[in-house]
Amino acid sequence: MRTALVIGTGLIGTSTALALASRGVRVHLADRDPARARTAAGLGAGTDGEPDGPVDLAVVAVPPAHVAQTLAGAMRRGAARGYLDVASVKGGPRRDLEALGCDLAGYIGTHPLAGRELSGPLAADADLFEGRPWVLTPTRDTETEVLNLALELVALCRGVPVVMDADAHDRAVALVSHTPQLISSMVAARLQDADEAAVRLCGQGILDVTRIAASEPQMWIDILSANPGPVADVLAAVAADLDETVRALRALQSADQAKREDGAAGIADVLRRGNAGRERVPGKHGAAPAAYEVVTVHIGDQPGELARIFADAGRAGVNIEDVRIEHATGQQAGLIQLTVQPQAAPELARALKERGWPVRQ
Amino acid sequence: MRTALVIGTGLIGTSTALALASRGVRVHLADRDPARARTAAGLGAGTDGEPDGPVDLAVVAVPPAHVAQTLAGAMRRGAARGYLDVASVKGGPRRDLEALGCDLAGYIGTHPLAGRELSGPLAADADLFEGRPWVLTPTRDTETEVLNLALELVALCRGVPVVMDADAHDRAVALVSHTPQLISSMVAARLQDADEAAVRLCGQGILDVTRIAASEPQMWIDILSANPGPVADVLAAVAADLDETVRALRALQSADQAKREDGAAGIADVLRRGNAGRERVPGKHGAAPAAYEVVTVHIGDQPGELARIFADAGRAGVNIEDVRIEHATGQQAGLIQLTVQPQAAPELARALKERGWPVRQ
Repeated sequence: MRTALVIGTGLIGTSTALALASRGVRVHLADRDPARARTAAGLGAGTDGEPDGPVDLAVVAVPPAHVAQTLAGAMRRGAARGYLDVASVKGGPRRDLEALGCDLAGYIGTHPLAGRELSGPLAADADLFEGRPWVLTPTRDTETEVLNLALELVALCRGVPVVMDADAHDRAVALVSHTPQLISSMVAARLQDADEAAVRLCGQGILDVTRIAASEPQMWIDILSANPGPVADVLAAVAADLDETVRALRALQSADQAKREDGAAGIADVLRRGNAGRERVPGKHGAAPAAYEVVTVHIGDQPGELARIFADAGRAGVNIEDVRIEHATGQQAGLIQLTVQPQAAPELARALKERGWPVRQ
Repeated sequence: MRTALVIGTGLIGTSTALALASRGVRVHLADRDPARARTAAGLGAGTDGEPDGPVDLAVVAVPPAHVAQTLAGAMRRGAARGYLDVASVKGGPRRDLEALGCDLAGYIGTHPLAGRELSGPLAADADLFEGRPWVLTPTRDTETEVLNLALELVALCRGVPVVMDADAHDRAVALVSHTPQLISSMVAARLQDADEAAVRLCGQGILDVTRIAASEPQMWIDILSANPGPVADVLAAVAADLDETVRALRALQSADQAKREDGAAGIADVLRRGNAGRERVPGKHGAAPAAYEVVTVHIGDQPGELARIFADAGRAGVNIEDVRIEHATGQQAGLIQLTVQPQAAPELARALKERGWPVRQ
């Protein structure tokens, strides 16, 4: 791939362009808003001038609802040898494109699973896709050349290609991304009118469950509007579990012991199924969390404590796999959990104790 | 307070006993399983011998369903001047105690909001309660002396006392703790039978939402069995939101534009209410997340990268408030987010860049 055209210079488009440009591809940038394309060009993502003739690959990075029209326009003017989009849903854009009478052989739908809390070209990063899955949805009609252009793009962006059927992709993201977003919002919404005393009791559990409830609504309205069916199906399954759990809780209030036992069994069932599902979520290196050990240290309220333990942990020479901090409510003090290989845990604990840290047994 | 009796030497009981013993209180330990009390005594939490006469305070730290019977037994033999329990629900034990004909003036229900992923006396820690809310539920019948004994206990354990009505407490923990646990389990349960390809697409969002789904079921069955009504009420409210959201998603599939717009408005509503609720969750120092700035650095797949950036961040002398790591799926590589005061962010970014770290703009 020597030339590319990136249409849509938001976070994903500009990040793709930056990765391509940094690896020697001549990138042309286009955006409905010329000022955004100019901003992206100013960051070194390419040129905002029109290409002289067809480029090797056109990358459409616009909101899901505009993908098909934008692709069709580019195809009509013969902008490229191959076409792809990077929208987070794949079935709808393909069907819209078909309805517009476009030839789908030169097109492949793709989706890089990467993002960040910020949007727009200024948030872009050539490393955004490194190590992240990048879904490709070829069909048997997709030209091999176009599939190879897409694979080259993913490699240049250092993503990990994953081939899937477009509709299977949409069901998968409904399950692992769109549903968790809506559920997180619903749990957080319960706090809107809660008593201040109740809010004070929030701990790490609800902090984690509601973290993504802080997401920007408009982006999610766009995504969910493009994938309503699969998301509704997953939510309906959650709703059935929820109704069953409410029924089990009400049974626990019964005067009848058999009913109470039945209720407890219902609660046990949902908790155990949750355990089983959670075990399937890939952790680091794809390994189960149990493959690591955690060294827990209590840190105090003095300024610089965190910096000091980082320096000490760094000096211990142990390979730290992950870090997690739990703060006591409203305080700097808290627990720092350092995840390491099991054989390294005693060494790290010893080194930290030697330097005066209160390491938990 | 000079003497205490801790009945139930699990995580909470033994941690309380350790905190009291380390601050000079003579602690007696009792457990249905004498070996557990012996283990706690061996850790320095007190003595497992019977007290000669009444102690100042009896602390009952047994599962919610056994609290009332255990308290009633201790009261009948006049074990202490004051009695409290530390169970995570408060309304039921009080009513059970009343039904057993006990005098409630000498009793106060309490709940320390602290815990860890491990249980039993060996997981105990004298610092477990430091900076955490510790709810006290006095009534107008509670003797002032007993309230003061409870406040002294909380102070010795370095907790933060919060006075609440028992039923208000139970509704609050249903909202901020018990409901998030069940919802997390239900989202995780959806993954149990998911395709492997879908599971590969899991990102940080679902990782956070399902973290507590890994919790031990039996402890949660005990807790939920003691607070079924308030939890069912919150879950029913979530279920109503969920049904409304499914309806909105189905409307988005309609051929009728007015219906689609109505659906989009429904989705926007739940996302915005989620934003508003999430803003109420207290962050560090009780401050809104926006009061800090995040310096994001890409770390590679080489061993020791995390230790090295810790050492470098530590040497920069900047006060780091929080740390968060997002790993690329199945890889060591990822993004490390260092949270600092806004004025410190440029200094930290400069120091890390100088040492060769790729700091994100």
